Amino acid sequence: MDWLNDPCANVSERYRDLALQRQQQLTKPSGALGRLETLAVQLAALQGREAPRADNIHISIFAADHGVAEEGVSAFPQAVTGQMVHNFLNGGAAISVLARELGATLEIIDVGVKEPLNHAGLISQRAGAGTANSVQAPAMTVDQLTIALQAGYAAAERAYAKQADLFIGGEMGIANTTAATALYCALLDVAPSVATGAGTGLDAAGIAHKAGVIQRMLDLHRNNLTSPLEALRCVGGFEIAALTGAYCRAAQLGIPIVVDGFISTAAALVAVQQQPDVRQWLLLSHASAEPGHVLATDFLGVQPLLDLQMRLGEGSGAALAVPLLRMACALHNNMATFAEAAVAGEAVTRQ
Amino acid sequence: MDWLNDPCANVSERYRDLALQRQQQLTKPSGALGRLETLAVQLAALQGREAPRADNIHISIFAADHGVAEEGVSAFPQAVTGQMVHNFLNGGAAISVLARELGATLEIIDVGVKEPLNHAGLISQRAGAGTANSVQAPAMTVDQLTIALQAGYAAAERAYAKQADLFIGGEMGIANTTAATALYCALLDVAPSVATGAGTGLDAAGIAHKAGVIQRMLDLHRNNLTSPLEALRCVGGFEIAALTGAYCRAAQLGIPIVVDGFISTAAALVAVQQQPDVRQWLLLSHASAEPGHVLATDFLGVQPLLDLQMRLGEGSGAALAVPLLRMACALHNNMATFAEAAVAGEAVTRQ
Repeated sequence: MDWLNDPCANVSERYRDLALQRQQQLTKPSGALGRLETLAVQLAALQGREAPRADNIHISIFAADHGVAEEGVSAFPQAVTGQMVHNFLNGGAAISVLARELGATLEIIDVGVKEPLNHAGLISQRAGAGTANSVQAPAMTVDQLTIALQAGYAAAERAYAKQADLFIGGEMGIANTTAATALYCALLDVAPSVATGAGTGLDAAGIAHKAGVIQRMLDLHRNNLTSPLEALRCVGGFEIAALTGAYCRAAQLGIPIVVDGFISTAAALVAVQQQPDVRQWLLLSHASAEPGHVLATDFLGVQPLLDLQMRLGEGSGAALAVPLLRMACALHNNMATFAEAAVAGEAVTRQ
Repeated sequence: MDWLNDPCANVSERYRDLALQRQQQLTKPSGALGRLETLAVQLAALQGREAPRADNIHISIFAADHGVAEEGVSAFPQAVTGQMVHNFLNGGAAISVLARELGATLEIIDVGVKEPLNHAGLISQRAGAGTANSVQAPAMTVDQLTIALQAGYAAAERAYAKQADLFIGGEMGIANTTAATALYCALLDVAPSVATGAGTGLDAAGIAHKAGVIQRMLDLHRNNLTSPLEALRCVGGFEIAALTGAYCRAAQLGIPIVVDGFISTAAALVAVQQQPDVRQWLLLSHASAEPGHVLATDFLGVQPLLDLQMRLGEGSGAALAVPLLRMACALHNNMATFAEAAVAGEAVTRQ
């Protein structure tokens, strides 16, 4: 796991400055494009290019099961994890539709669904047949954690090989809001009662029960929660570990990352607490409807781009942010300057 | 102007119900796609179609000058209005870039730029050479208001003839945040000190001066501000009137409207106060950085989709919302149902 601490790629201050200068020259009041301006500048600096781009998108969806599902923390049965993997592969899921709309590469990686799946299109890099029930034991062994992190490493390498402009990670795993919430609690030092939400659709009693389960997870592993990787191992999940590995490796390879929602942000928390330089490679796509999410975005110091009250996962929120990034790039690269258009700029003519 | 009060098109409750039913069957937890679900359902009802769509986009940009610009209320000189019209026509402005990215129809209508412009691509439907200075006189005569409203009517008719799925209106007019803010104050009964913002880039002293000018406009015309159309005539602008006419006519023709930001929302306020049924045809694209905007969105009871701290106008915020609407339609139309994908739905299997 030593590779997790390797340095992230350099961010180009030269291209950041050039992009900032160009934004000042485009035919609009300074700052009038709001966050689209800062996004274009950030992408130029991260990609080290005069013309930032968001054309070639690599989406990796990691699927795995959770032993803690047997505590009744989800509105859906565990079998849905594997069923949804088939749905991803057959093109019927939300992320399948969104990936087609974006012309993105979509790959599905089984990092530990309970029943192994047979499908030619599936990448299999299994760390186990689901995690252990983390109210009874650590969710995974060190070896399993290593395999799951490595699955993310490999996904980022594939994105790099395909010269992806952006990396998106997504996940599927019944009960994984429970694992992710436990990570929020451990890494941000908040109580389950504050951070626990409805997941795929619990009612108030279900949420209270889930918060109790999370408290038991935290109590059992309280001596192992000081290190982000140990927290990930004890209360996390294979797909969350894979996302952590993917984020770390993408940042090392210099690929900007569009983070999805609640589960993905748990992986981002682990990655950033392990290697703080990862933070600058993260673009947060959307504010999750889960109540804990804002605690993490505050910690990361990055505002999500969208707030559409989504709570689906699968990388779907990240995919929805891509058109905005494409528009930000198109505006940056293709708008006329004041000089080109013979428009009087504010600095020249202000009275 | 009697046509303004003609009834809006029918909204199909049948297709709304069908769309709601379909959303419940798609392979995702109920409600997990958040606002994308409600948008797809709304578009299905408005368009009266089983499969809503946002492919064919008609964008009409109305440009005009404002006599009140001579009070020094803008960071830019008045000549910029005409210069930006050339920039629109030459493809260098933000909305030009966005329209190309969307494959949208973009048309520019001169409804009263100070100096008439010569360009083969420009639609000329001029109500005058800019409005009168509304701290001294009504911005326009009844005849001028009629011409400007009619310019919007004609734009909506062109959108209809091209079978547009959505109508977007935009505007350009130096000093038009002053006119729009005066309309917010008149129609929502708020003080200029509350509603006045930086526009294209005023500093604090500039904003205070602008609020004072708006107060003078309101004082001069206080006996004419009870009717939305009279308020529009006395303190509005030709491009705002054109947008009002376009919104009313689009709603009559059954074309859903994506409203841009601060200026466009002033026109939406006039339209809705004149003909309340227009409201259901409005999708608000983004929250403007202008402080008064939230007062109007609260009045309209519709939350904007995006908050990107934009303050450009030109229809740019509305254009940015289009990819989200397209994604909402694609998800609604193309995701698999639980039955199709053999995925266990919540209602069937919940424990």
